[in-house]
Amino acid sequence: MTAISPTRQEDFPNWYQEVVLPLAGHGAVRGTQVIKPWGYGAWELLQNGLNDEIKRKGAQNFYAPLFVGMDALQSEAKHIDGFAKECAVVTHSRLKEENGQLVPDGELTEPVIVRPTSEAIIGPLAKDWIHSYRDLPMKLNQWANVVRWEMRTRLFLRSTEFLWQEGHTFHCSATEANAFSLEMQACYQVFLKDQLALPSIAGEKSELERFSGADHTYTLELLMQDGKALQGCTSHDLGQNFSKAYDISYSDENNQLVHAHGTSWGLTTRMIGAIVMVHGDDDGLVLPPKVSPTQIVILPINPKNDPKVTEAVQEFKAALDGLSFDQKPLRVMIDERDYLRGGAKAWEWVKKGVPIRIEIGPKDLDKSQFCLSRRDQAYGQKQFLPLDQVMQIPELLEDIHHTMYQRAQDFMNDNTFVVDNKEALMDHFSSGNSGFVTVFYAGSAEDEQLLGDHQASIRCLTQSETEGLCVFSGNATNTIAWIAKAY
Amino acid sequence: MTAISPTRQEDFPNWYQEVVLPLAGHGAVRGTQVIKPWGYGAWELLQNGLNDEIKRKGAQNFYAPLFVGMDALQSEAKHIDGFAKECAVVTHSRLKEENGQLVPDGELTEPVIVRPTSEAIIGPLAKDWIHSYRDLPMKLNQWANVVRWEMRTRLFLRSTEFLWQEGHTFHCSATEANAFSLEMQACYQVFLKDQLALPSIAGEKSELERFSGADHTYTLELLMQDGKALQGCTSHDLGQNFSKAYDISYSDENNQLVHAHGTSWGLTTRMIGAIVMVHGDDDGLVLPPKVSPTQIVILPINPKNDPKVTEAVQEFKAALDGLSFDQKPLRVMIDERDYLRGGAKAWEWVKKGVPIRIEIGPKDLDKSQFCLSRRDQAYGQKQFLPLDQVMQIPELLEDIHHTMYQRAQDFMNDNTFVVDNKEALMDHFSSGNSGFVTVFYAGSAEDEQLLGDHQASIRCLTQSETEGLCVFSGNATNTIAWIAKAY
Repeated sequence: MTAISPTRQEDFPNWYQEVVLPLAGHGAVRGTQVIKPWGYGAWELLQNGLNDEIKRKGAQNFYAPLFVGMDALQSEAKHIDGFAKECAVVTHSRLKEENGQLVPDGELTEPVIVRPTSEAIIGPLAKDWIHSYRDLPMKLNQWANVVRWEMRTRLFLRSTEFLWQEGHTFHCSATEANAFSLEMQACYQVFLKDQLALPSIAGEKSELERFSGADHTYTLELLMQDGKALQGCTSHDLGQNFSKAYDISYSDENNQLVHAHGTSWGLTTRMIGAIVMVHGDDDGLVLPPKVSPTQIVILPINPKNDPKVTEAVQEFKAALDGLSFDQKPLRVMIDERDYLRGGAKAWEWVKKGVPIRIEIGPKDLDKSQFCLSRRDQAYGQKQFLPLDQVMQIPELLEDIHHTMYQRAQDFMNDNTFVVDNKEALMDHFSSGNSGFVTVFYAGSAEDEQLLGDHQASIRCLTQSETEGLCVFSGNATNTIAWIAKAY
Repeated sequence: MTAISPTRQEDFPNWYQEVVLPLAGHGAVRGTQVIKPWGYGAWELLQNGLNDEIKRKGAQNFYAPLFVGMDALQSEAKHIDGFAKECAVVTHSRLKEENGQLVPDGELTEPVIVRPTSEAIIGPLAKDWIHSYRDLPMKLNQWANVVRWEMRTRLFLRSTEFLWQEGHTFHCSATEANAFSLEMQACYQVFLKDQLALPSIAGEKSELERFSGADHTYTLELLMQDGKALQGCTSHDLGQNFSKAYDISYSDENNQLVHAHGTSWGLTTRMIGAIVMVHGDDDGLVLPPKVSPTQIVILPINPKNDPKVTEAVQEFKAALDGLSFDQKPLRVMIDERDYLRGGAKAWEWVKKGVPIRIEIGPKDLDKSQFCLSRRDQAYGQKQFLPLDQVMQIPELLEDIHHTMYQRAQDFMNDNTFVVDNKEALMDHFSSGNSGFVTVFYAGSAEDEQLLGDHQASIRCLTQSETEGLCVFSGNATNTIAWIAKAY
């Protein structure tokens, strides 16, 4: 029945651990997470919305297996340098009892790993499915769980298992593949803005930060309230790298065999963590209306069990049920629990981040009004509205969405610092500041390494219309580097 | 451009392997399967429909981890006798390169297994989440992948990894839990009938066939066209078995600690296999209209590239796009590929099982007609309908659904044999017959074992209104056993 302790200011990591609790918890096996109904409800809404966008891009959903064999991994061994080494390795196919203990049995001739990503699974399939230029472009997508064995885990941000969608496409030409990977990056950026109220910077990863199998990695970078950046979605132009590793080729219009050009792109449950860290406040979660499992909760104030109140509340809900927002019916519930005090109930919904709370009691009915609290406003701030203004609620949800987006956008602007020399750049981070620092950049891997000494890194590169001098090399360039500490 | 070879009559298992190909294929790792876009499209439609039903039952979706620890498994060790021993055991957390080969590294102190089902994962969570009778009933559901290491695999029917939904509920009383498990069985039966056109027998498993952690296992049993039974969905009344193993208890209205009563229930991708084996014919798949990713394919006949035909086809599709079936817009596509001959195109859609094919050519337009072929009728059987009868197509889909259901129901009736003595029962199976045999039954585990000698088993038990004599013990009983060879 109180705000979150510690506050964001006092201790952001521990604030996060507290505030995220209505959404998720830790599984019994180290590093795993449980997505609770409230969190999964948000993910399902996100999923439905994004699934529609992905289908509009012409991709078809399918499902590839969970396990990758060693031979398929060997084929892409040169790409395996990065994350893929930390993975769950299955070496046995049964358990047996030995002195009352369960122990592994049935050793596999070849161990298999649980997919950390599916390029090595989809490669051999695409080889079978693609024959002619007429089979291209082939656009596939799957919603799946993946596993990367992480040492230090944090709910949604870094966990041994997470959920995502991974798209994989194959094209005839390099131009088409590159254009499609950029199209998906743009699709994600609009989706984050329109559905999750999340502003982002769309750029390209530097060579050091690029996915090891990609020619280009396009990324969305988000800024959290502690001033650290979080990588949002990525979209990779894979060139012919995987096509060559798995011999994915097609016969072109002149009957010549050519390796296909690939892309892959993904969005993960990490975005739920971004929602928490961008929008949350010291009272708890603040969910964007479009992905809040309940958008409006009605809290009847009815200590005397007055049937007039019960009836008015039911009528009010029925009126809401007839309205829609974002082309879907409103998601409304009445919290009828009579064993909790009004304050305790209200705080529960505050912490869960429900966009709108409505209180209706006998005094309100006398005045033909209801009392409305917006989660994007401070606790205690209330509006009393005439009962017939129920029709305005979809517009309020729209306004909450825009207010949340604008607030996050303002925060990002206020925490983006333009710097024109290397000393100021390094000083920024070495003196404990955060946020994005942008600089003109035509530097080298060694320069990037230097940033690492200050726990900062190039989050992405964008192109400026004007030219400037690289803060490292002094060379003229149009490239801007967005530098930050990051999750 | 031909029918399936072999036919069902010639060789049912190999017919199955051929006919299933548009839906799925084998993964590179032994025993795994790839669900192709056409098959996943059907699964997604099934999923959306069933998800709505499950939510109507008050269950909330959530997501529990993929991995189970050994300690959690030990707690239910007495229930582990069955399938749970064949599982994927993860013993290492990374790969390293050794002489150019990738080998397991980072041995785990405690191995973990990939979930074969999630009772042992959800048990400890429910223990944390349930405190008071006010938290009950708690109804959870997840859509997930599970792994059971199978030696002999067959696409959709038996594979190392499969997809399913698993529901888990907790109740205050034994009566309520039992009633809910029966409610879910009924829900599945209606769903199979209404959405997949699949008739089924709803009964209870015998002690021998029951899920080892359940007090009662309720099942739906289906009959395939080769006369073998396939277990459809199951719904378990778990009593207090898992609640005691994981100490899931609540304080009741008198503040007494009581163990909760549980249920679990699931439907898997196996149902796609059932669709194939119940409805398929010697020309290929026959998909029930409600789960066919495309319901109507339009095949323009336009060798001279007559713009009049192109236009008429577009108009026809636009008219279809405005219609709906089962409260959803029709799923229509035009197959415009001009590099395939008409016959080859038509056969491709026949094999994919699309419910309705429509041909429109210049001659049809002269007569203001279109040519319609129903997949539930023999190849070559066509109707020529006036163009303005496009409005009738949703009704035709409904009729196809009912025809498919009725045909399957008739097949099941024609292949259900009532027998009143043990010799006739044994003779039936020992002389190579299949189908269901029903008998009055009050027998013992030894009697069931006898059936096993003839590759038959009790698929389920139902209650008759009249009494009869058990074919084994001779005792009077109301119980009917449905006996069959089974997948």
